[in-house]
Amino acid sequence: MKVVVIGAGGDVGRTVCGELSGRHEVLKVGRNSGDFHADITDRRSLDKLFGDLGQVDAVVVTAGAVHFAPLTEITGEQFMVALSNKVMGQVNVVLAGLNHVSDGGSFTLTNGLLDKLPVTNGSGAATANAALSGFVAGAAIEMPRGVRINVVSPGLLDISAKRYGSFLHGHEPVASKVVGAAYAKSVEGALNGERIIGE
Amino acid sequence: MKVVVIGAGGDVGRTVCGELSGRHEVLKVGRNSGDFHADITDRRSLDKLFGDLGQVDAVVVTAGAVHFAPLTEITGEQFMVALSNKVMGQVNVVLAGLNHVSDGGSFTLTNGLLDKLPVTNGSGAATANAALSGFVAGAAIEMPRGVRINVVSPGLLDISAKRYGSFLHGHEPVASKVVGAAYAKSVEGALNGERIIGE
Repeated sequence: MKVVVIGAGGDVGRTVCGELSGRHEVLKVGRNSGDFHADITDRRSLDKLFGDLGQVDAVVVTAGAVHFAPLTEITGEQFMVALSNKVMGQVNVVLAGLNHVSDGGSFTLTNGLLDKLPVTNGSGAATANAALSGFVAGAAIEMPRGVRINVVSPGLLDISAKRYGSFLHGHEPVASKVVGAAYAKSVEGALNGERIIGE
Repeated sequence: MKVVVIGAGGDVGRTVCGELSGRHEVLKVGRNSGDFHADITDRRSLDKLFGDLGQVDAVVVTAGAVHFAPLTEITGEQFMVALSNKVMGQVNVVLAGLNHVSDGGSFTLTNGLLDKLPVTNGSGAATANAALSGFVAGAAIEMPRGVRINVVSPGLLDISAKRYGSFLHGHEPVASKVVGAAYAKSVEGALNGERIIGE
């Protein structure tokens, strides 16, 4: 399969590329790194990307920013990052890519577990994560030509634990291969409309 | 209790006002109708509203727009309505109102069931509904001074069935008193961080 990974330079993106590149042609996309460049918040940038890539079999998105701040201090603009970047960015990829994915192909989005296991300062992340699960549920019943869509909720990656572990009390780091396998279930399996827990 | 209902002129808003006005002082807020006017997408409008209202014991939001369109046709701008209006509008109410709600008071937001029971053309609604459940889960653990927050997911109201029933195949209309009772559970009870199903 020809698999595009958008956000390939991040910890989760590298994990996905590592999992899939032995079995598939993996095209790495980043804002400033990788084989191709694109900004998920800019629809024209995504239209150009899919035009350049030609037809693909699977699209994986592991990109999307949220702002972490206390609920009592976060501004509307800061909160909005979760919606306009992480949620709308990933939705943009689906809307832009829909006509460029082959029959029976797939989209695999990425959220996380902070709506199920909230942490302090994480109300924006909780909102974005749940939103993407809702989008996948709603979009799955309207996907054309047998195209599937799922979202993976990675746990705290072992390779990310040093940077983020102190914010995520009690979140046990999960081996990269477990997270990679969650993406493989979506890309190589037959699931549709599912939230796949990667931990 | 002094209860503010934002979106009081809609079907759900009128149902909430009917349920609570016998036992509480209910202040009705609408964009163009009601006792006070405010636009949930405009933070300054909400800051003025809460300044005018003084301290309140409960805030109920039954306002928020989404755009319904096929996934294969919806534009990014149309999709964004669900995020910037329904989600960010209700989040704005919480951020603006947090310092104006009395100790142990409450916020009650409104989403709906279309992320759990998706319908054609409803990917934006599914996204917004799930997002608000995630927000409530994330915000509940950070609310100050014993303030609570919940979200009600109303079914298809009997009084709305004529207008919307044809889009919601198989959704059995639910009596207004059942939906009203769901809001009462949040406003008058002790729940926090919950999604309360109103059907």
